[in-house]
Amino acid sequence: MAHCFLHRRRVEFADTDVAGIMHFSNFFRFMEVAEHAFYRSLGFSVHPFRHGADDSGPNVGWPRVHASADYRLPLHFEEEVEIELLVEELRGKTIHYHFNFWKHPDSPEERALAATGRFTIVCVSFDADTRRMKAVAIPDEWREKIEAAPPASASF
Amino acid sequence: MAHCFLHRRRVEFADTDVAGIMHFSNFFRFMEVAEHAFYRSLGFSVHPFRHGADDSGPNVGWPRVHASADYRLPLHFEEEVEIELLVEELRGKTIHYHFNFWKHPDSPEERALAATGRFTIVCVSFDADTRRMKAVAIPDEWREKIEAAPPASASF
Amino acid sequence: MAHCFLHRRRVEFADTDVAGIMHFSNFFRFMEVAEHAFYRSLGFSVHPFRHGADDSGPNVGWPRVHASADYRLPLHFEEEVEIELLVEELRGKTIHYHFNFWKHPDSPEERALAATGRFTIVCVSFDADTRRMKAVAIPDEWREKIEAAPPASASF
Amino acid sequence: MAHCFLHRRRVEFADTDVAGIMHFSNFFRFMEVAEHAFYRSLGFSVHPFRHGADDSGPNVGWPRVHASADYRLPLHFEEEVEIELLVEELRGKTIHYHFNFWKHPDSPEERALAATGRFTIVCVSFDADTRRMKAVAIPDEWREKIEAAPPASASF
Repeated sequence: MAHCFLHRRRVEFADTDVAGIMHFSNFFRFMEVAEHAFYRSLGFSVHPFRHGADDSGPNVGWPRVHASADYRLPLHFEEEVEIELLVEELRGKTIHYHFNFWKHPDSPEERALAATGRFTIVCVSFDADTRRMKAVAIPDEWREKIEAAPPASASF
Repeated sequence: MAHCFLHRRRVEFADTDVAGIMHFSNFFRFMEVAEHAFYRSLGFSVHPFRHGADDSGPNVGWPRVHASADYRLPLHFEEEVEIELLVEELRGKTIHYHFNFWKHPDSPEERALAATGRFTIVCVSFDADTRRMKAVAIPDEWREKIEAAPPASASF
Repeated sequence: MAHCFLHRRRVEFADTDVAGIMHFSNFFRFMEVAEHAFYRSLGFSVHPFRHGADDSGPNVGWPRVHASADYRLPLHFEEEVEIELLVEELRGKTIHYHFNFWKHPDSPEERALAATGRFTIVCVSFDADTRRMKAVAIPDEWREKIEAAPPASASF
Repeated sequence: MAHCFLHRRRVEFADTDVAGIMHFSNFFRFMEVAEHAFYRSLGFSVHPFRHGADDSGPNVGWPRVHASADYRLPLHFEEEVEIELLVEELRGKTIHYHFNFWKHPDSPEERALAATGRFTIVCVSFDADTRRMKAVAIPDEWREKIEAAPPASASF
């Protein structure tokens, strides 16, 4: 029932900008970090394409075809944020993720939604002949471990 | 009629990732770079909030409340990309931008859409008492120079 | 005897480049992250300059005037690295840090030095009149907690 | 006599940090950008390693084994900086670069050195058998176009 995953992260100095808050583009890096931590929690690793003959395992990649974020509250330097990943939908070749960024994750009174985000990921394989990527079915070993969230928890 | 603006940019080594292409988060940095170049082309600068007494001009900021991107084709190291900014909608306190990333911008045969993106920007002022940002009307000096694109050019 | 500090960090996808390894500039971000974690471990926080009247504590900043790195072995995506911070020298207004990046930190056989680095940090205060930074003595409350490493441990 | 090269660059919003100035790590990205622009000016491109059979040209890479910077004056958002690259030394397998960052490059009165930096680059080839990089002689086609600066211009 791995459709939800939590990942903590501290806003670093290099993540901020002259406006004094985390630069908006870094929310996307944080979402990806949570996504990769999610895969590791399932026993997977997201290696990029490998072309050598000695590589084992399904030779697939996971590029994103869509990424978006909606910002509500700024994040500041040294602040800890909880990134909540939710598997919104699991289809044949794609996965839809939803992310919530929680400010003050340890304070029931102050806990607040700083931002939300979305990724659409496509499973692709690399065709050595055409040197192009081609969408393919998500390998069963991934599919079995990743489940879409039940409708109730997916509604925000 | 400043509703459209073109900005060139080369993909740098630090923009790429181990998958061999521009990291998806850097499209957002490129969109912002094009947006700021657009403001400069109109004679404006996007300074962040200034708290000193000697600052002149409207003390406003332009945080984004929404950012999204849809990816079609990868960008590679050293490739030049043309970022096309279009003012989709100009409202009282917000601006909606649409972006197109053009690969091979100088080749009529190869020119292709690598990605599209969107920003929603809110004009805010900083309230020194509450230390919070508050949405305010876009200053007239900005509004007069920025025009929303006519419906025809806005439809993709 | 806080002259040595260890900080773990995983190489993220966005840290890598098209050569398949961590981009050399990100070692500098990692060093700064370790430095700030070191301060937090002592009970300090590195806030940037604050100009408001209600701020308490010494209003100082810690810009670096020197940063360097020597690279021996590449770091790869998802690899965990141990960043070792050592206070090389503590002077009146400056601190010299030395960093070691340890690959395979948990394997006695494979543990290897991937890179070393150095920072020279200057304690500065912001002069509101001239709007410039000025080097000042490191506050006693910092000095008492930070000690330079004994000669033996500082020799590499 | 290509031992000196100038490259202009504007400080972008994402390059700044909460201290209101360009983050120190980004000077290293700027140095690399100038270095790659220098190679392009000579007719070269710095492609990363290519393993395919159809690739032509010397299959070499240019990792840096040393990078350093000394900071004198901060750079601010939207400021244009002139990056001056100087070939300090050209040896069998390595190149030493020196960089100067010039603030206010167009104003004889205000022109000032914001920072200096150094790179040591090693020419390497990728050994497909051992999957490791090995230092090799700089290809003649590169060497012929890159010259070390005469002693006088190299002394700072």
